[in-house]
Amino acid sequence: MDVFIEPIGKLINEFSKLPGVGKKTAQRYAYKIIGMTEGEARRFAESILDCKRKVRYCRVCGNFTEDEVCDICKRREGSVICVVKEPKDVVAMEKLHEFKGVYHVLHGVISPMDGVGPNDIRIKELLARVSGGEVKEVIMATNPDVEGEATAMYIAKILKPLGVTVSRLAHGIPIGSELEYTDEVTLSRALSDRKII
Amino acid sequence: MDVFIEPIGKLINEFSKLPGVGKKTAQRYAYKIIGMTEGEARRFAESILDCKRKVRYCRVCGNFTEDEVCDICKRREGSVICVVKEPKDVVAMEKLHEFKGVYHVLHGVISPMDGVGPNDIRIKELLARVSGGEVKEVIMATNPDVEGEATAMYIAKILKPLGVTVSRLAHGIPIGSELEYTDEVTLSRALSDRKII
Repeated sequence: MDVFIEPIGKLINEFSKLPGVGKKTAQRYAYKIIGMTEGEARRFAESILDCKRKVRYCRVCGNFTEDEVCDICKRREGSVICVVKEPKDVVAMEKLHEFKGVYHVLHGVISPMDGVGPNDIRIKELLARVSGGEVKEVIMATNPDVEGEATAMYIAKILKPLGVTVSRLAHGIPIGSELEYTDEVTLSRALSDRKII
Repeated sequence: MDVFIEPIGKLINEFSKLPGVGKKTAQRYAYKIIGMTEGEARRFAESILDCKRKVRYCRVCGNFTEDEVCDICKRREGSVICVVKEPKDVVAMEKLHEFKGVYHVLHGVISPMDGVGPNDIRIKELLARVSGGEVKEVIMATNPDVEGEATAMYIAKILKPLGVTVSRLAHGIPIGSELEYTDEVTLSRALSDRKII
């Protein structure tokens, strides 16, 4: 790194902390910053500080918000809750413009291997929401991996006694893909979850 | 973008300005920032401002520096000048730890298609340095593309009358590659520039 003068070296180092960014890419980003106007660079830096300063988690659902309660929780009817692992999964769902219910962000999934138990993620908050009595359906939208499945199963088991419908996003062959190239686990799941037409 | 709250949307927008960064990657970067501690985010933002504030161009060679004249120009003997297109090319050369001379950054190459003529890049500054009389050799290290070649040829032509040796980095088959996969232009160049062994 001694081929760079200090401020450039430092900035490259900071950019390297971003996910998937190596030294070479960080270097390109740093050059881009140097090529910016003073105002552009200030806007960039400000937006980083702003994001850190203003963004917090919704007291109800755990999604990102600027206020105590997020816009989704404020505006929407709360009878259907979609449970996701992370705030970015809310973004993925919202992009559909189809789901009109509210969310519950777990901020993780149960993963004994990583020392994450049911009490380490926002399950009791979900339980409290469902216990309120207004909720009719909980859609489990955790990822279709081992931890996501286990978390969905665990939550389903503790929610069912409360008389709420618990559903899971369908798994199967992605639209537009080919049978030949579908992995065996997905194909087997598609077969067992087949729908009568 | 309306699925993001304002500070996150703004930060994603800023990250999207970096070279090769699309919305999806910018989103990942923004989440990383949100996940940082207050101090980490501040350090990140500061390093951007610092880089913009402190980095300027060396009065002599045009490379990045924090002072008026860069460390390389200050410390090294100036009889051999390596001419490059951009400051990042200085970094590439310096990583070799082989070249012990000084640099001259053109900040561009002659490119009539883009409206860049000889007066738009730092050629007269190079001419002034060489006219000083101390310079014995000028190594043209512009890229081996049409503009880089043309610029090297142009500069060689105007420097030669000053009695200085003008050389060009060798072109040929990259070490470790195979003849079969070498493109025709490179192979043809390797043939015409063959060395007697």
